[in-house]
Amino acid sequence: MIDIKEDERLSVLNHSCAHLLAQAVKHLYPNAKFWVGPVISEGFYYDIDLGDYTLTDDDLDKISKEMKKLSKDGKRIYREEISREEALERFKDDPYKIDIINELPKDEVISCYTQGDFTDLCRGPHVDSVKECKNFKLLKVSGAYYKGDSKNKVLQRIYGVCFDTKEDLDKHLALLEEAKERDHRKIGKDLDLFMGHELVGPGLQMWLPNGATVRYELEKYIKDKEVKLGYNHVYTPYLASTELYKVSGHWDHYKEDMFPTMKMDNEELVLRPMNCPHHMLIYKHKLHSYRDLPIRIGELAPDFRYEASGAVCGLERVRQMCQNDAHLFVRPDQIKEEVSNVVNLILEVYKDFNITNYAFRLSLRDKNNTEKYFDDDEMWEKAESELRKVLTELGIDFYEAEGEAAFYGPKLDVQIKSAIGHDVTLSTCQLDFLLPERFDLTYIDENGQKARPVVIHRAILGTFDRFMAFLIEETKGAFPLWLSPIQVNIIPVNNEYHLKYAEKVMKKLADKNIRVKLDDRDEKLSYKMRESQSHKIPYTVIIGDKEKDNDNVSYRLFGHKETETLSLKEFEKELLKQIKERR
Amino acid sequence: MIDIKEDERLSVLNHSCAHLLAQAVKHLYPNAKFWVGPVISEGFYYDIDLGDYTLTDDDLDKISKEMKKLSKDGKRIYREEISREEALERFKDDPYKIDIINELPKDEVISCYTQGDFTDLCRGPHVDSVKECKNFKLLKVSGAYYKGDSKNKVLQRIYGVCFDTKEDLDKHLALLEEAKERDHRKIGKDLDLFMGHELVGPGLQMWLPNGATVRYELEKYIKDKEVKLGYNHVYTPYLASTELYKVSGHWDHYKEDMFPTMKMDNEELVLRPMNCPHHMLIYKHKLHSYRDLPIRIGELAPDFRYEASGAVCGLERVRQMCQNDAHLFVRPDQIKEEVSNVVNLILEVYKDFNITNYAFRLSLRDKNNTEKYFDDDEMWEKAESELRKVLTELGIDFYEAEGEAAFYGPKLDVQIKSAIGHDVTLSTCQLDFLLPERFDLTYIDENGQKARPVVIHRAILGTFDRFMAFLIEETKGAFPLWLSPIQVNIIPVNNEYHLKYAEKVMKKLADKNIRVKLDDRDEKLSYKMRESQSHKIPYTVIIGDKEKDNDNVSYRLFGHKETETLSLKEFEKELLKQIKERR
Repeated sequence: MIDIKEDERLSVLNHSCAHLLAQAVKHLYPNAKFWVGPVISEGFYYDIDLGDYTLTDDDLDKISKEMKKLSKDGKRIYREEISREEALERFKDDPYKIDIINELPKDEVISCYTQGDFTDLCRGPHVDSVKECKNFKLLKVSGAYYKGDSKNKVLQRIYGVCFDTKEDLDKHLALLEEAKERDHRKIGKDLDLFMGHELVGPGLQMWLPNGATVRYELEKYIKDKEVKLGYNHVYTPYLASTELYKVSGHWDHYKEDMFPTMKMDNEELVLRPMNCPHHMLIYKHKLHSYRDLPIRIGELAPDFRYEASGAVCGLERVRQMCQNDAHLFVRPDQIKEEVSNVVNLILEVYKDFNITNYAFRLSLRDKNNTEKYFDDDEMWEKAESELRKVLTELGIDFYEAEGEAAFYGPKLDVQIKSAIGHDVTLSTCQLDFLLPERFDLTYIDENGQKARPVVIHRAILGTFDRFMAFLIEETKGAFPLWLSPIQVNIIPVNNEYHLKYAEKVMKKLADKNIRVKLDDRDEKLSYKMRESQSHKIPYTVIIGDKEKDNDNVSYRLFGHKETETLSLKEFEKELLKQIKERR
Repeated sequence: MIDIKEDERLSVLNHSCAHLLAQAVKHLYPNAKFWVGPVISEGFYYDIDLGDYTLTDDDLDKISKEMKKLSKDGKRIYREEISREEALERFKDDPYKIDIINELPKDEVISCYTQGDFTDLCRGPHVDSVKECKNFKLLKVSGAYYKGDSKNKVLQRIYGVCFDTKEDLDKHLALLEEAKERDHRKIGKDLDLFMGHELVGPGLQMWLPNGATVRYELEKYIKDKEVKLGYNHVYTPYLASTELYKVSGHWDHYKEDMFPTMKMDNEELVLRPMNCPHHMLIYKHKLHSYRDLPIRIGELAPDFRYEASGAVCGLERVRQMCQNDAHLFVRPDQIKEEVSNVVNLILEVYKDFNITNYAFRLSLRDKNNTEKYFDDDEMWEKAESELRKVLTELGIDFYEAEGEAAFYGPKLDVQIKSAIGHDVTLSTCQLDFLLPERFDLTYIDENGQKARPVVIHRAILGTFDRFMAFLIEETKGAFPLWLSPIQVNIIPVNNEYHLKYAEKVMKKLADKNIRVKLDDRDEKLSYKMRESQSHKIPYTVIIGDKEKDNDNVSYRLFGHKETETLSLKEFEKELLKQIKERR
């Protein structure tokens, strides 16, 4: 989705459209007072004081019509530069504008823009004529506190967006509609996947049975893959002494993203923001020989990070997340092979989930803003050039981005373009020379000498929370068969005649660990069929006379109109095959 | 194991033996000063000031010999009652005894006991003669702060135990030896099952790959069983607003067992001590009809409870645990059937783990100490009599225990006797009329009216932490095949000739998800065999010429001396069968 604010032409156009909106409001509500009307990523808004009046959608239609009329009139937009005194005089009826004027720096040139009977205080620039603003859409109205302070008065904030052509506007509105339809929060609610509650708190989601089933399948999927690749999984506690994070460096470089500490007996404990320090201790508790490396320690690891309560969003941005994490302890000569193994695993997983729209990003530190990072230029040079070299040698196509590294080292991030156009970091593979130093990790090399291992931090699915949000938006909640909370929904045409055979079918499938449901409610067949579709169940099975008499099942696939028939045995076989192949 | 302090005769005997110990010490170390020598569950100890001298095991032998000699002499033990002045005079050389005398209440009768040349200040009672103290054993010596305060001087604390007969003593010492050998902390360390670390903190254990494998198998085992019984699993956050626990009543009745709160933005958050409140919210978020009940919500749920840092113990008593928890939301008429289902599940699981030494306990509130419990006599009467009635109707043999209920209701606890004689609560099934009230839970009954469900809280394996501790002590770390971290260890007789076939065997088994290891180190066969036994691996496979030439495997079962031979195919089949049947 386009960022209006970032596009020079669209930014000016939307700003002018905000003026057009204000002019129309002034025509319809002569007592309206105006605060600010800025351009934002999504278009523009204007904050307006209408006394006690609250705008409705009908009002938006009226305002929209007035804007169309004004736009057709096609008045030119003039810029004037005026003195502070004149500005104070011209806007004397609008206390908000007076406020703005008084807050302008003494030496600032004050300008205003006029179109027909309407003048607004503004820095500009603007388009030449209101005619250019005709392809707009008012999106919504909501209350907004004056200056964002909840102690102040509530103003009416009208949102809109404007394009140069009707085609561009329509395309954008279709995208907006698509994004709304794919919004994982909406689908999460519709399909009972997860829920939040004010008694639990912001950014803390509860995974309901349907969502939890999908998550458990994802967990088993990635864990099985990792076990086959020689990973060893652990469970570590979700909190630790703050001392641990002083050793790791989180305390110096990551504290503001951490939860508040808890004092208990003589200890100070804190919820962990990452689980790497725990894994460092696990590596350290035994002596290792060069022959034992690489050692791959994995964990489905809950971590806790501070997010402002206003910044949290569904499963996408949360305060408690579960990482698909692992730390690979390798000899320097094994870096290349292990990074290659990680990249291969990423690609294999993307193939399973049909993710094709991705790009590799080498995330480096921002050299002009080094206080975010551990202070060791030599280490950074080494780690960044090593990772770049490995990626080049492996023939991986990547771009570089400064300021995106972890505090302890550079990262290979995999950026995917989501169905609604968001750029999301899904997987990551990080090269770390720092934590082995901080925790004094060693192995005994071929000459019997102590040597320092290198740590590769990696996450394939990222966090289960964000991956689930991504998956919901990709599939609109119509999960592939192997992930579906309910895989098969069986509907008897008539409970009296067909229930018994339907139960037999259910038992047969359930015995094979297929997630099956029997809808034996006294409702119409067509109603049940529609509901099965709206629940996005992959297979809706209809059992009538024909099926019962021939030991068959007839089924309709989600999103299809045709009904297929198979013998029960073939049907079971087909389901198991598809589940196994994760199609 | 017997509690010495609880046994009247043994308590007196051990107390007298403490005096005998003091007498012997006085003979050998004339400058010794004596603090206190009480009886404890494990026997007795005496805290002694020997200046800067630290006792060794050799010293204990010497003291022991002197005690034997004195006991043989057979002096009588006399009681005297003396005035405070006389007491102060008699013990004037021992500042510790003077301290004790000064702290005695004014009206207390002061008594002392004398045997031969030794007199100790003591309330008594004692046995008649030191002769009776001959069957003793000094167990260990350690440092102990005077009055338990780390700012004070360190005294020498000698521990011992005494019985009436040599047979009783020997039996007890054998039990102690057994307990030491089965100690889950020791085995956990020997077999790399779990570890703690001071940087993480007391009561927070890290499950190492071996332990984590066992736990993951346990998790899958119980979750699969529950899914088949119609449970729906969820994932809920490990913390919540303190407001949630005010609604549930934990804030009033369970706060001292909870972690400190965390302030974040405008919220106050706290780690959860139990997950029932989250599950109540999940039930509440939808409308339910009487036809939907029972609803069974399960979770492998991490919970957090305060334990004093001195009270934590391995995996048995921890600050972070993971519960095998579920809440069943039932209609009143379904209580009996659901409790019965829970009891059946418990018995089925116990059969799988070969647990036979258990008893059902009906845990009631303590009516004389009601501030621990939610205050609603009528609710308690109803819940307790209902649960008692159901148990009686189900024909379950149970005993009753006051003061063991949860704050919200009575419990059916299953108490097991562990291999080292501990009485442990493993499973629990609780009847709760309170939380449905507090959270205003409802369903629509057959008449279209709102009705109140009842909640059954249940845990089958209890916490995975405590269950693991129990399992380790039961099996001494020799887990059944299906749980073993490594199920098969393959040792080629000669790497040069047999490695290739050994690798083939490994691959074949690994492909079937059998956890298999190949020991191809350049070590002697006998050394590798011994190590395989000490790692308690169920199957040690030896690959030599005979095996390689005939596509066979020869194996030795853990703890056995015989070697068996099977074709590779039969071996694989046998393993898969045993794993499936959880033998």
